[in-house]
Amino acid sequence: MDTRTMLEQVKNGEISIEEAESYFRKSPFEELGYAKLDSHRRVRSGFPEVVFCSGKPDAFLQDIYKRLYEAEGEVFGTRADVRQYELMKQVIPKIQYDEVTRVLKYENPDKERKGKIAVCTAGTADIPVAEEAAQTAEFFGSRVERIYDVGVSGLHRLLSKLDIIQEANCVVAIAGMEGALASVIGGLVNKPVIAVPTSVGYGANMHGLSALLTMINSCANGISVVNIDNGYGAGYIATQINRLGVETY
Amino acid sequence: MDTRTMLEQVKNGEISIEEAESYFRKSPFEELGYAKLDSHRRVRSGFPEVVFCSGKPDAFLQDIYKRLYEAEGEVFGTRADVRQYELMKQVIPKIQYDEVTRVLKYENPDKERKGKIAVCTAGTADIPVAEEAAQTAEFFGSRVERIYDVGVSGLHRLLSKLDIIQEANCVVAIAGMEGALASVIGGLVNKPVIAVPTSVGYGANMHGLSALLTMINSCANGISVVNIDNGYGAGYIATQINRLGVETY
Amino acid sequence: MDTRTMLEQVKNGEISIEEAESYFRKSPFEELGYAKLDSHRRVRSGFPEVVFCSGKPDAFLQDIYKRLYEAEGEVFGTRADVRQYELMKQVIPKIQYDEVTRVLKYENPDKERKGKIAVCTAGTADIPVAEEAAQTAEFFGSRVERIYDVGVSGLHRLLSKLDIIQEANCVVAIAGMEGALASVIGGLVNKPVIAVPTSVGYGANMHGLSALLTMINSCANGISVVNIDNGYGAGYIATQINRLGVETY
Amino acid sequence: MDTRTMLEQVKNGEISIEEAESYFRKSPFEELGYAKLDSHRRVRSGFPEVVFCSGKPDAFLQDIYKRLYEAEGEVFGTRADVRQYELMKQVIPKIQYDEVTRVLKYENPDKERKGKIAVCTAGTADIPVAEEAAQTAEFFGSRVERIYDVGVSGLHRLLSKLDIIQEANCVVAIAGMEGALASVIGGLVNKPVIAVPTSVGYGANMHGLSALLTMINSCANGISVVNIDNGYGAGYIATQINRLGVETY
Amino acid sequence: MDTRTMLEQVKNGEISIEEAESYFRKSPFEELGYAKLDSHRRVRSGFPEVVFCSGKPDAFLQDIYKRLYEAEGEVFGTRADVRQYELMKQVIPKIQYDEVTRVLKYENPDKERKGKIAVCTAGTADIPVAEEAAQTAEFFGSRVERIYDVGVSGLHRLLSKLDIIQEANCVVAIAGMEGALASVIGGLVNKPVIAVPTSVGYGANMHGLSALLTMINSCANGISVVNIDNGYGAGYIATQINRLGVETY
Amino acid sequence: MDTRTMLEQVKNGEISIEEAESYFRKSPFEELGYAKLDSHRRVRSGFPEVVFCSGKPDAFLQDIYKRLYEAEGEVFGTRADVRQYELMKQVIPKIQYDEVTRVLKYENPDKERKGKIAVCTAGTADIPVAEEAAQTAEFFGSRVERIYDVGVSGLHRLLSKLDIIQEANCVVAIAGMEGALASVIGGLVNKPVIAVPTSVGYGANMHGLSALLTMINSCANGISVVNIDNGYGAGYIATQINRLGVETY
Amino acid sequence: MDTRTMLEQVKNGEISIEEAESYFRKSPFEELGYAKLDSHRRVRSGFPEVVFCSGKPDAFLQDIYKRLYEAEGEVFGTRADVRQYELMKQVIPKIQYDEVTRVLKYENPDKERKGKIAVCTAGTADIPVAEEAAQTAEFFGSRVERIYDVGVSGLHRLLSKLDIIQEANCVVAIAGMEGALASVIGGLVNKPVIAVPTSVGYGANMHGLSALLTMINSCANGISVVNIDNGYGAGYIATQINRLGVETY
Amino acid sequence: MDTRTMLEQVKNGEISIEEAESYFRKSPFEELGYAKLDSHRRVRSGFPEVVFCSGKPDAFLQDIYKRLYEAEGEVFGTRADVRQYELMKQVIPKIQYDEVTRVLKYENPDKERKGKIAVCTAGTADIPVAEEAAQTAEFFGSRVERIYDVGVSGLHRLLSKLDIIQEANCVVAIAGMEGALASVIGGLVNKPVIAVPTSVGYGANMHGLSALLTMINSCANGISVVNIDNGYGAGYIATQINRLGVETY
Repeated sequence: MDTRTMLEQVKNGEISIEEAESYFRKSPFEELGYAKLDSHRRVRSGFPEVVFCSGKPDAFLQDIYKRLYEAEGEVFGTRADVRQYELMKQVIPKIQYDEVTRVLKYENPDKERKGKIAVCTAGTADIPVAEEAAQTAEFFGSRVERIYDVGVSGLHRLLSKLDIIQEANCVVAIAGMEGALASVIGGLVNKPVIAVPTSVGYGANMHGLSALLTMINSCANGISVVNIDNGYGAGYIATQINRLGVETY
Repeated sequence: MDTRTMLEQVKNGEISIEEAESYFRKSPFEELGYAKLDSHRRVRSGFPEVVFCSGKPDAFLQDIYKRLYEAEGEVFGTRADVRQYELMKQVIPKIQYDEVTRVLKYENPDKERKGKIAVCTAGTADIPVAEEAAQTAEFFGSRVERIYDVGVSGLHRLLSKLDIIQEANCVVAIAGMEGALASVIGGLVNKPVIAVPTSVGYGANMHGLSALLTMINSCANGISVVNIDNGYGAGYIATQINRLGVETY
Repeated sequence: MDTRTMLEQVKNGEISIEEAESYFRKSPFEELGYAKLDSHRRVRSGFPEVVFCSGKPDAFLQDIYKRLYEAEGEVFGTRADVRQYELMKQVIPKIQYDEVTRVLKYENPDKERKGKIAVCTAGTADIPVAEEAAQTAEFFGSRVERIYDVGVSGLHRLLSKLDIIQEANCVVAIAGMEGALASVIGGLVNKPVIAVPTSVGYGANMHGLSALLTMINSCANGISVVNIDNGYGAGYIATQINRLGVETY
Repeated sequence: MDTRTMLEQVKNGEISIEEAESYFRKSPFEELGYAKLDSHRRVRSGFPEVVFCSGKPDAFLQDIYKRLYEAEGEVFGTRADVRQYELMKQVIPKIQYDEVTRVLKYENPDKERKGKIAVCTAGTADIPVAEEAAQTAEFFGSRVERIYDVGVSGLHRLLSKLDIIQEANCVVAIAGMEGALASVIGGLVNKPVIAVPTSVGYGANMHGLSALLTMINSCANGISVVNIDNGYGAGYIATQINRLGVETY
Repeated sequence: MDTRTMLEQVKNGEISIEEAESYFRKSPFEELGYAKLDSHRRVRSGFPEVVFCSGKPDAFLQDIYKRLYEAEGEVFGTRADVRQYELMKQVIPKIQYDEVTRVLKYENPDKERKGKIAVCTAGTADIPVAEEAAQTAEFFGSRVERIYDVGVSGLHRLLSKLDIIQEANCVVAIAGMEGALASVIGGLVNKPVIAVPTSVGYGANMHGLSALLTMINSCANGISVVNIDNGYGAGYIATQINRLGVETY
Repeated sequence: MDTRTMLEQVKNGEISIEEAESYFRKSPFEELGYAKLDSHRRVRSGFPEVVFCSGKPDAFLQDIYKRLYEAEGEVFGTRADVRQYELMKQVIPKIQYDEVTRVLKYENPDKERKGKIAVCTAGTADIPVAEEAAQTAEFFGSRVERIYDVGVSGLHRLLSKLDIIQEANCVVAIAGMEGALASVIGGLVNKPVIAVPTSVGYGANMHGLSALLTMINSCANGISVVNIDNGYGAGYIATQINRLGVETY
Repeated sequence: MDTRTMLEQVKNGEISIEEAESYFRKSPFEELGYAKLDSHRRVRSGFPEVVFCSGKPDAFLQDIYKRLYEAEGEVFGTRADVRQYELMKQVIPKIQYDEVTRVLKYENPDKERKGKIAVCTAGTADIPVAEEAAQTAEFFGSRVERIYDVGVSGLHRLLSKLDIIQEANCVVAIAGMEGALASVIGGLVNKPVIAVPTSVGYGANMHGLSALLTMINSCANGISVVNIDNGYGAGYIATQINRLGVETY
Repeated sequence: MDTRTMLEQVKNGEISIEEAESYFRKSPFEELGYAKLDSHRRVRSGFPEVVFCSGKPDAFLQDIYKRLYEAEGEVFGTRADVRQYELMKQVIPKIQYDEVTRVLKYENPDKERKGKIAVCTAGTADIPVAEEAAQTAEFFGSRVERIYDVGVSGLHRLLSKLDIIQEANCVVAIAGMEGALASVIGGLVNKPVIAVPTSVGYGANMHGLSALLTMINSCANGISVVNIDNGYGAGYIATQINRLGVETY
């Protein structure tokens, strides 16, 4: 109904003033918002849904896994525990779980992976977060190079991998404790660096807050930061960036 | 001139091996005594050096501006003040300054700009940071769309610009106060969002820390964050991302 | 006893100086405070007492539940655990408990509910806090509309419920992570919004502190904030507001 | 004129459908280039726009004041300085300014005020914030009772004013330092209390953060909190609450 | 005159019941419009009112100084500036001001001082806070020993003054930087220690917050803490404690 | 040995330069410190040692309890658990333990208690801290009045106990959540108030930090603060204060 | 390959532009970095590797212990638990474990120890951190003096050990709660003091952050600080310092 | 003259026992009324007193400079301003001042400097702090190598200076922003690294707190940290360390 029709019906008493008032209060959203948002849903569907398992009620989780698996033929979840693995196995027998990375997935085995993302960690304790990032990016179709344990206190380890890192479309730099890795990598590559602080450390590290601050204050160019331990988020944005580069070749 | 162009000209015989050698041979940094100008930066990163003017001693700043201008034919600095503008005018008469954005630059007028970056702000008070981002990106060769004053408290303003925002290779979302803009945009686009918290606000905003936390904790995918008021950093990484997309077309 | 009588008795030695001194020290409170405070107790009794179960000693809790149930014919407690449920069942056999919401109550089944409060959450993990708010408000006689999982990263979900939200006398906006929901709703309604940050999230969310800061710094009008996870507090003040509106019709 | 009045006049034939159509048809915001004036705000929220003067460029501020004054016949701004007052006087000669409260307004002198809001402060140093709240509420049509300097360290002062406070539809409790006033008032009234922490204090007060925390953690029911020194925000939501109560009588 | 003296004179017939009645009958506060002067304070607490000058409007301050001086024959204010001194001189010509301590007072020259309070500082930069404490305590009738510049990095300085410190009824320990003085003194005396953190220091001292935390966490017994730079508060409570001891002898 | 003798022996080669150097490095402490410190130990012995049980190795704890009990005929420990109680019972069969207060003690049953300390709590959840304070003070010989559950949200409860509170030599005000109790009591008594923040609360209470900040910033006079949940510390300093008053009568 | 050869091959088409580009991007690191870094490894090997056991996967830990033991004939790990001890015993039967210090090591019994490091603690609860420091330093060949439980609240305990402390090449000062020990020792010795804050304490101690701040802000000279509970780090740097002194004699 | 020299001269008869006695006999501190000059400091620590000029009253500062200059023949102060320079020139005409470093000193021109300290900065903005450290160390007799502007974002700059850095007895690593320099240097040298965070940066750097946290959490061995901008403290402890190494040769 357009404005004039609405007003005429008000005048004629065909609709009440209250109805008309409520119509005008929300009209700009109806006009502007809906169509775009709906079409947008389709645009955005380049990324399948990923499940954050931690804390989800069992029945709910089983339902989501089943539904996603039926719709997509594959399914991917992060921060799952062994108990959840057992439960999902009931609905998707071939589902796979790894205790270190806490990823619970069934992934199409012959998925083509494109471009290149380098996922680097400062230490071995950062690997769970790194694998969350790497496997997320792989699930979304990115090729991933893993370069682990190249923290800045032994610089030669990092420099010896420079070739591989410099070839990537995007670098994910993952570090706990003081988080200096991101700054050093930022100075060595010409592609975006997504920095992931981890909660690895103790004392004044404050569960990763210190590493987060380090990364946000980085003196190097081309670094931006996601939440502490947010491997998934890094894998997601790194894939968005990688896709821009991938479509080049 | 960048590395690839240089090498192509070597191959085509447009420049001699000697010229190219001298280009690559120059020490990767130039020792000024008080500082080490990173002349290898362009080779390594493909980005010319940009000057952070605030707090630099006068003579030092003039020297850097002169040196960069002579080497590149253009020069770009952020967070300059009027006094510094007057001083740089002495060495580069045609240099330009804008008090709101605090950018002090001479930019090649016929530079070709490619791709697209959308720079969005929540309010008008965020514009200085936005212009630092936009002009940085433009100086580095990106095309920029400015979409200002589209904060989430009047959602229809943002939705009416959705078309333009969705076309960009990268969105820079700039907001102070509670910084919710990044999350809302993150849910509406399928390209990376670089979030910039600003120090706009008061009270529990704590000079932008609150907006930074909002953005780091965003529930939306595809968002990563730079330091408070760091328009330059956002413009830099957005250009890195845009370049990946640009080379596609 | 009035001042003159008191002084005369001091003079006559009928009361000691110490007694008189202590009388004058507290007299303004006796004169001004008591009567009002007592009558106020009765005024305030529009709200029955609600029990915060967590950490209460068992015997004490049983006693309170029994006493309240005998006095009011119903009883309502928040943050109870299963063990407490078993204990209260001993004294009030028909008491009801729900593990997700942790509400432990017996509520008059034919209570009339008036007005309307909209209780909205950003995600499904915020539902326990939302139910604490909703059931508190219902126990106090408010009609409640539940609109869950309408976080800002998928704006169409929220906009599709706008009708219902705009009709309420008060909106309770509940969100963890970055807590942007409150700002977006604040821009869409013309009634007060009570924002409840939740501890849902991880990393730099700092157990809800980040969401709290977002909400306190909101750029939207008409928003005020209660403590992290304080569903009860939101349900209480929302009912106070709803009652003002209810008495209109 | 508000939406409901407009619709009633349409119904009664007091204004033509064409006039009404042009009112509703106007784009929901007015593009000023640097800003988007939210002309749909009154339709959506029933509140005219209020100007946050601090930091706004001069020309922009003059333009907004002029535009709002022409549209509404009155205009209201907070956190203005003397220089801005002089500038606005050029475009609205009868505009009024008060240095203590920093309110810069022209207000319709015969505006009817309804209902009642009690604005209470702990000390005299909180009065500027209180006046921002009180005058905002008055501009929006609320009747306001001012009860200043009733901090909890001299409880008899507060108790002596209890009658007036208990009659209000909403209480605004404003305090710096430790901010205990809100809790004490919360225990004495049965209407919503909007608590405003102020930056009054020193040392571990941390510019009002301490008072904010006190208020958010209040043990009393019916309290919610706005940002530090945010008198405007308190006046706004208090008016929303007051309107619900006003329409009762 | 204090309450007890008044009552004794009533008993002895030295003043009439009428005179006493008028003393006690006066309203427990005086309504000044902008403020409520707490005239009941002396009855309740045995302490005359002290003025916190910083930020008080000029007319208000003059009015308060005049009123207090007329009532008590003396007046005492803290954190005054030179301009305020000039203004108060207009109403109380013999008023005295000291720029270092920022105390603005006229004090009865032949006041008897009783008991003993030791006021100790770690460094010379803490002296302004110490003098605020010492002169406050003296104004309230305590005898004060000043022991300045006895910080823990040169322990022999403190140990050489141990005799004097151990004789006091109460010790005020004032320190900025890391604030260790309170713990060391706490281990050396058997009387209460009131610790005052100061904002002296830089960097991670965070304007005194670090010293405050040190003092609150002290491993020594018998220490309690007031706000950063709160010399007045320390002088007040030290006097309360000293009075308990004084009445012994 | 004095300085001259020392120097003569250096000259004569009777002692080495190294020995002399080390002598002079520490001499001021030997001269000033020792005697005083030793005599001080005896002075300080007015307070018997109290045991902080939490985290002490079993054998060590048994040893301490046994030794103290043998020396004093009584023994007092805080923050003990049931297991420690069982262990101490092995060495002191008549030892007593209370799970709520976590005090593990054997106290001389006919100890005379003097003076008066009022221990007040805002809520029932603060009682464990309050009992730690009260029983500590009683163990040290103070008479204690317990006034529990008099939080500021129901002011009449506090005012009805004013007589008892005003008679004490020292008031201990214990509160979690927003901690406003200390300020209100501070305004009602003329004796020192020792404020104890507790970790009771949730969310932005940050384990008692919020209550601590409230108390440190109190607008009332005569308040000083000890660490969060530090009932023992409050009982200790309250006793020091009470003793000063006790010796009066 | 040198630059000229490279360029000639580009010209001749012997290598592609892409290969050349990648060569030039990383050249400065190859030239400068490698040789030095590798030779540096040998230089640095004065310190054998130490294992941070906490959180290491079992198989990985066994492997490291085995490998280090085979290479060095001894092995040293910190923050181990009993379960890890049992596991390592399988591969190194004579390995030793201490539950209090959590050190898991086999150390060459006839290692010569040189120089002197004094390891001091404020309390007994700091001993686990102290032993981590002491045993680390001993494993690295330093002689260590343990001076435990010399906190500043009983100064005579510390002063009585002054001789021993003043003879060390480096002092490690370990304290939780308010951490004042470092400042006091700093004022008593002429050698570097490495301060170690511990997480011993509660409430506003914030898991050692308060002690860290105390130590960082110390008014004494010659103090620097390592992370909370970082005994290993202190033992390491203390050994570096001690070695400088050791080589003197 | 230091203690050891004095004693050697006593032994050798170069000075009389009387002269030596008067040296040692002087009270370990000099009472100035407002301060206690620690004349025992040199005996205790081997370091002459250095003046922290900022905030010292003029007369006091002149007095101290004069006194120290007369006693030592030289004098050294940090954080002085131009006005203080003018004032000190009145008492010590040949005193020298440098605006960038803010050091105000007269130093013996032919002082022998021993050992080696490397003072490194990340950027040019860190130079004032670096010079405070370097000149402090030089005043105390250390040889200093300055290596400025070698931040981690251009790693080749640092690596090119590795030789010089590795030869030092102690490295001072100075950095603002994210402070990663200390970790990288820590991994490259085998001597102690004293890390100095600076307040250089903006936004989430929080005046150096972020760099401080980075350094405290460093993953590299052999790093300890002093307060933000505390160049003096670093120069002091670096000298203590350097002296240990110096005496070797």
